Amino acid sequence: MASRCAFLILVLATVLASEPSMPQPRFTADNQLIRPEGYREWMFVGSNLNMGYAEGPEPTESRFHNIYIQREAYRQFAASGRFPDKTILVMEVIAAGTNASINKRGQFEDRTLGIEVAMKDQQRFPEQWAYFNFIGKEGAPLAQAKAFPKEACWKCHNQHGAADNVFVQFYPVLREARPK
Amino acid sequence: MASRCAFLILVLATVLASEPSMPQPRFTADNQLIRPEGYREWMFVGSNLNMGYAEGPEPTESRFHNIYIQREAYRQFAASGRFPDKTILVMEVIAAGTNASINKRGQFEDRTLGIEVAMKDQQRFPEQWAYFNFIGKEGAPLAQAKAFPKEACWKCHNQHGAADNVFVQFYPVLREARPK
Repeated sequence: MASRCAFLILVLATVLASEPSMPQPRFTADNQLIRPEGYREWMFVGSNLNMGYAEGPEPTESRFHNIYIQREAYRQFAASGRFPDKTILVMEVIAAGTNASINKRGQFEDRTLGIEVAMKDQQRFPEQWAYFNFIGKEGAPLAQAKAFPKEACWKCHNQHGAADNVFVQFYPVLREARPK
Repeated sequence: MASRCAFLILVLATVLASEPSMPQPRFTADNQLIRPEGYREWMFVGSNLNMGYAEGPEPTESRFHNIYIQREAYRQFAASGRFPDKTILVMEVIAAGTNASINKRGQFEDRTLGIEVAMKDQQRFPEQWAYFNFIGKEGAPLAQAKAFPKEACWKCHNQHGAADNVFVQFYPVLREARPK
């Protein structure tokens, strides 16, 4: 009896001490990423407005980008400076609003337009990281998406990402958590 | 022995099933709020750039505001449309950067300047909500702060906040979670 009791307590204590498991990416049979859900409860790492990498005029319609990462991936990055396998970064795109309610100047986050995703899967993708757009025609949200070809996103992230293909330099929460 | 075992298991199961407790505000003896910590692990509810409530020119130095709330307060708001007692909203102020690394246009979050806080305490404050600035002279972070007088922040939040003194209308995560 005493040993069974000790065993049950050990099991419960182990469950109690364990981290919740990291949300995992899911794929269709033909290698399309299924749209991640629940990311607003993940860790927010930074926002930007109209971020662009090419010279040119500001866009006529302003957009915020809010970037999220799984909490467990964040913790591993903060501890080691590396993103674990199955890391997902979600970029939520939100149209900027102004001059609504009592707002008179500046821009707030108005209309959610959809998400784009970067994810790391060392077995599935020869380049480790792949990039996906879940905003369909006329803004319709896509349930699944194919990875962009390597030249479209990967190359620039690989050349310019401050850590492991990620633009850590633009995200204050990752930048400040990164081990020195 | 069996009953002691059952009791221990009951205790462990109760702890296991319980939500993590909501981070509580802490005050000094003279009613100053002690600077909240760990808020980047809370729930992010929205960002804005140079948000202002008075007519006038855009500021010469752009600033992002990232707003966070305790996860437990978020869940209660999503369930009931009300913010529970001891709700804390942290607004992190970050100077905008541009034209760094490969960024050519738009603005990213560059230099963290400090935080301002709104919090609800029904016993402590006759108006329920109070407002605090933790950015001191020349940007020095303050360890504690006195509540602003009622006229400085409370009045405008009370008149214009879409729900319970909070500018839910400007924060997409709260806006979309609010019960219909």
